[in-house]
Amino acid sequence: MLVVMEQNATQEQIDAVTSLIRERGYTPRPIPGGERVSIGILNNEGAVDPNPFLALPGVKQAIPVTRPYKQVSREFRKESSVIRVGDVSIGPGSLTMMAGPCAIESKEQALTIAGHVRAAGAHIFRGGAYKPRTSPYSFQGLGKEGLVILAEVRRQTGMPVVTEVMETETFDLVEEYADIIQIGTRNMQNFSLLRRAGRAKKPILLKRGMAATIDEWLMAAEYIFSEGNDQVILCERGVRTFVNHSRNTLDLSAVPVVRKESHLPIIIDPSHAAGLRDQVIPLARAAVAVGAHGLMVEVHHEPERALSDGAQSLYPEQFDRLQRQISAFYEILCRNGTMGHSM
Amino acid sequence: MLVVMEQNATQEQIDAVTSLIRERGYTPRPIPGGERVSIGILNNEGAVDPNPFLALPGVKQAIPVTRPYKQVSREFRKESSVIRVGDVSIGPGSLTMMAGPCAIESKEQALTIAGHVRAAGAHIFRGGAYKPRTSPYSFQGLGKEGLVILAEVRRQTGMPVVTEVMETETFDLVEEYADIIQIGTRNMQNFSLLRRAGRAKKPILLKRGMAATIDEWLMAAEYIFSEGNDQVILCERGVRTFVNHSRNTLDLSAVPVVRKESHLPIIIDPSHAAGLRDQVIPLARAAVAVGAHGLMVEVHHEPERALSDGAQSLYPEQFDRLQRQISAFYEILCRNGTMGHSM
Amino acid sequence: MLVVMEQNATQEQIDAVTSLIRERGYTPRPIPGGERVSIGILNNEGAVDPNPFLALPGVKQAIPVTRPYKQVSREFRKESSVIRVGDVSIGPGSLTMMAGPCAIESKEQALTIAGHVRAAGAHIFRGGAYKPRTSPYSFQGLGKEGLVILAEVRRQTGMPVVTEVMETETFDLVEEYADIIQIGTRNMQNFSLLRRAGRAKKPILLKRGMAATIDEWLMAAEYIFSEGNDQVILCERGVRTFVNHSRNTLDLSAVPVVRKESHLPIIIDPSHAAGLRDQVIPLARAAVAVGAHGLMVEVHHEPERALSDGAQSLYPEQFDRLQRQISAFYEILCRNGTMGHSM
Amino acid sequence: MLVVMEQNATQEQIDAVTSLIRERGYTPRPIPGGERVSIGILNNEGAVDPNPFLALPGVKQAIPVTRPYKQVSREFRKESSVIRVGDVSIGPGSLTMMAGPCAIESKEQALTIAGHVRAAGAHIFRGGAYKPRTSPYSFQGLGKEGLVILAEVRRQTGMPVVTEVMETETFDLVEEYADIIQIGTRNMQNFSLLRRAGRAKKPILLKRGMAATIDEWLMAAEYIFSEGNDQVILCERGVRTFVNHSRNTLDLSAVPVVRKESHLPIIIDPSHAAGLRDQVIPLARAAVAVGAHGLMVEVHHEPERALSDGAQSLYPEQFDRLQRQISAFYEILCRNGTMGHSM
Repeated sequence: MLVVMEQNATQEQIDAVTSLIRERGYTPRPIPGGERVSIGILNNEGAVDPNPFLALPGVKQAIPVTRPYKQVSREFRKESSVIRVGDVSIGPGSLTMMAGPCAIESKEQALTIAGHVRAAGAHIFRGGAYKPRTSPYSFQGLGKEGLVILAEVRRQTGMPVVTEVMETETFDLVEEYADIIQIGTRNMQNFSLLRRAGRAKKPILLKRGMAATIDEWLMAAEYIFSEGNDQVILCERGVRTFVNHSRNTLDLSAVPVVRKESHLPIIIDPSHAAGLRDQVIPLARAAVAVGAHGLMVEVHHEPERALSDGAQSLYPEQFDRLQRQISAFYEILCRNGTMGHSM
Repeated sequence: MLVVMEQNATQEQIDAVTSLIRERGYTPRPIPGGERVSIGILNNEGAVDPNPFLALPGVKQAIPVTRPYKQVSREFRKESSVIRVGDVSIGPGSLTMMAGPCAIESKEQALTIAGHVRAAGAHIFRGGAYKPRTSPYSFQGLGKEGLVILAEVRRQTGMPVVTEVMETETFDLVEEYADIIQIGTRNMQNFSLLRRAGRAKKPILLKRGMAATIDEWLMAAEYIFSEGNDQVILCERGVRTFVNHSRNTLDLSAVPVVRKESHLPIIIDPSHAAGLRDQVIPLARAAVAVGAHGLMVEVHHEPERALSDGAQSLYPEQFDRLQRQISAFYEILCRNGTMGHSM
Repeated sequence: MLVVMEQNATQEQIDAVTSLIRERGYTPRPIPGGERVSIGILNNEGAVDPNPFLALPGVKQAIPVTRPYKQVSREFRKESSVIRVGDVSIGPGSLTMMAGPCAIESKEQALTIAGHVRAAGAHIFRGGAYKPRTSPYSFQGLGKEGLVILAEVRRQTGMPVVTEVMETETFDLVEEYADIIQIGTRNMQNFSLLRRAGRAKKPILLKRGMAATIDEWLMAAEYIFSEGNDQVILCERGVRTFVNHSRNTLDLSAVPVVRKESHLPIIIDPSHAAGLRDQVIPLARAAVAVGAHGLMVEVHHEPERALSDGAQSLYPEQFDRLQRQISAFYEILCRNGTMGHSM
Repeated sequence: MLVVMEQNATQEQIDAVTSLIRERGYTPRPIPGGERVSIGILNNEGAVDPNPFLALPGVKQAIPVTRPYKQVSREFRKESSVIRVGDVSIGPGSLTMMAGPCAIESKEQALTIAGHVRAAGAHIFRGGAYKPRTSPYSFQGLGKEGLVILAEVRRQTGMPVVTEVMETETFDLVEEYADIIQIGTRNMQNFSLLRRAGRAKKPILLKRGMAATIDEWLMAAEYIFSEGNDQVILCERGVRTFVNHSRNTLDLSAVPVVRKESHLPIIIDPSHAAGLRDQVIPLARAAVAVGAHGLMVEVHHEPERALSDGAQSLYPEQFDRLQRQISAFYEILCRNGTMGHSM
């Protein structure tokens, strides 16, 4: 960390900073500048908390140099992580396609859609049993009945299933039925849920919070690691900005940054980013091109009857077309060596 | 709701929209425009879900006209709500001051600070026993021990206490000790926590999510109402924007909007918005001036030793000064009749 | 437009709205709702200004239905526009590559880089003669000398050149030398510059403003059209958001939206969006995949000596690699028919 | 500046950084950390350009420590600047009220409104003669005729007038008629306009750009200073964020930050921030409370007939009420010593 003093900081204030640095077991290294003094902190293991320094009079800024995350960082583990679920891999070497409806509405609906996406080449079936809804009066998902349907889809199609968990109370149940457990964007900093996920035996799909920086997102993954579960897949799904022509703004630069900073695989959910079907296919292509390890896409055979998010669901034939396009893209990336274990 | 068709929408597509409107029990009212057709929806009770309409081909937009929230709206309850905790009221007629450290660190620390803020005129003591921290390696709060200290503060000072609950598992415990239960910004859309809060017998202080619109925030309050608890206090604490000179951007226009749309009281937390002490006092004054029903401010007698958020904590003497300034402001507002039950 | 009344609006207030609608020559169509009255406006040609209606008491919202832009809209001109500059086309049917240094620094520098990018397959040479710099003390570009060098690059390589104009005073000069005239992000709403561009005989490359909605961007293009110049190329270059790992957030969903709403070609500048070299190549691939008609990329053979924006400039060999990757992508898109004249 | 190396940076890469530092005439000071090396830069006068360093391989970040602006900084001039226009002062010691219509529409309109605001206590009359409008088809202002009307308002009321200049071509004319020349939010980085303003003999009111950081805003003021004009008033008018209940988000924390970093006076325009009349009065009160040196407010006696921005204009009687409220607030601030020459 670098502690930057105000231009008019007194020697007494500078000394208070160096004392506090020593008190915490680090070594201060003053850097006298033309206009102001800065003080580097040496011999720290891991990140230093800037707050106590910012609390001192005469301090202008405290600039962290060390990244706050540890176990999820590429500096900690050089080799990229590959998550395996049955025969399916997520990480370098694969482009993993997760597809299905926003919400499980009935066994018939789930099996119909699963049949379509399976035939088109999807690897994993997605579908919500517990739905986080803005309104308490909206359809909240089928709950346990939805989980049972997901298990039936797996039995009939052989596809692993991913579904969202919303709370610690139902975590055991979700963990029993799901192959991959999703933590949604609204829960990215639900720390007790993250800790529980850290004790799960199944991989966790961790969506980025709507206003989360990459540091905060990786720290959420660090919570899961800190409890012992290192099977984490990151999922970018758009962030909230002033832009009003799509529901969220898909931040594709997150892919090269995460792949550089962390060893974890990262996939993209273009459906929630776009919010509108017309944008989903172009954004899905872009997500593959930017170097994501997979996609999560919403598909519904009757979107106008969907109980949730019909406007952003692809028709099955659109999903077919998307699959063909991105397979060709992915081949090029592989030939170019872009999808290797490092950036 | 108004369904706006694409300019080149076919008659068949328009008919599909009017059919779907009728199918859902509403009445369609087509509005032929110069360039495109729009279709109004009549005879709906409450908000209509735009998604099924957006899912139909030829539909450009579906524009909601009815607000999605009900019980929290001023249209539902004309009279402003006043929340009472012991002798303290929150709502029109009072300017309620909540103050204390970010985290409870020890009995001595809590009582020292409580003594200061009590003397300066604070009404409610704040202090975190369970702390949501970005890093799993940071101080996470004293937990139950912190709650016990809060009870001791109440006993010795007579001030009601407000503290954050982070999860349903510890909700009973927090409810037992706290006078007001806070739901933090990261949990604003933790729907199971909201539902549990809806079954609590104590008032809930609901902080706005870092990227939440006012509609989403009021819908979170609606979750609490929908389970039977109508004792909700809203708290604006800054939203995330590109602005980098403060930790968050305090959105003071939320106060007149919330006071117009809802009957609930709204207070401001300038400490988390600013992130830096120098900005806290000016923003606190502005919060009173804009018409908030109270403030929540962090105070620490040794901020450079604070285990959490020292940089934004006021020194006790700064809190004194703040109290004197805002009392004078509030008197003027009262004389002007600005703080009445409606906007 | 739809004028939505407050729930408690009086009949008198509703009448004032319908009077104002008639006064302006339109036809009011009231839509009585369960909770509130809305009033549709019929028989308007083009967009209706919402402000006079919002100014009336009892009005809650005035929701535009008609798009504000005319000549740039796809509804106005169904066929996609293709801009031709010498042998080069920009629009459906081509993937046009513009490359070169941020700033022209010397004849040698320009010719060296031009040789590299020409050999790698670039179609148009870019380079700044007039540079908009945040600081008055930074290098401001070579001015006319830079334009002369650009002309020399064109003479020696045959590549058309694109360069930025910053003000009406130097517009004649830039128009004399440039093949395409760029209007930068900071000038997107410099309306006198837009009007002057509307009287130019050369195509205009219009960058999106850092915080502009697509409506505002298309309205800026409408300014150029309104003065008679219909040779406009749009360029997305990232918008400003809270995200701090890239200089700006590249909004790729703008591509499908612009291609649907407008007949104008749209290209992407990944260099300014990213701000850092490591992100440029992945984002450039994504830009092609999403369906852009071209790219504008910064290349420098000695980025650490560059007088402007070295950190985001590709090395020539990186540009080679990028060209190979995107050509392969583009072929797939063409085979798929994704790059046709409509979305 | 602090140059932070990648963890795996080679000694050769570190040496390249120290060489470049020496080459530029500065002194490198390496700071070996536990995980990575950082290199401080000493003996620089003024800010160091981070770009050449970011362009070197192995460099992770280049963190500026020195502020980029000079003449506008409080470090350069300790005493707060007070701008004088006739009998009116803007800066510490005054709360200056600028009021009037968005656009000058006719002599009668201007004089009617000027009479109202003068009687209520306004010091300066505002009104647009040249209007920056999103659409080329909207009312663009009366131009020179508007300037003549402004002069007539000044003659009849004695109030100095402030009006916007949009381009260098009409700058002479505006400078001839106006007492204060406004540069609008869309032109904050129109650098040729800023340079021309730097050669003006009249004070400049510089509005913050819609997505500008405070550093960028102060650098725009620095452009004006760099040409010799040190009469600059800053005006915060809201920034663009995801928030959709107001037209822009008023960033009041800019006031304490600007007052700390710069000696320039800062006023607030709550009308453009809010976009809706109901929010203007509360935000205006907050602006005074936060410590602004003045306000700029739109007032219209017939907002529903206004040719521009009627929805945000106050009725004259609302402006009266506002004046009474804020005068009382300002007195308290003065008694508290909050409005002194430093923060």
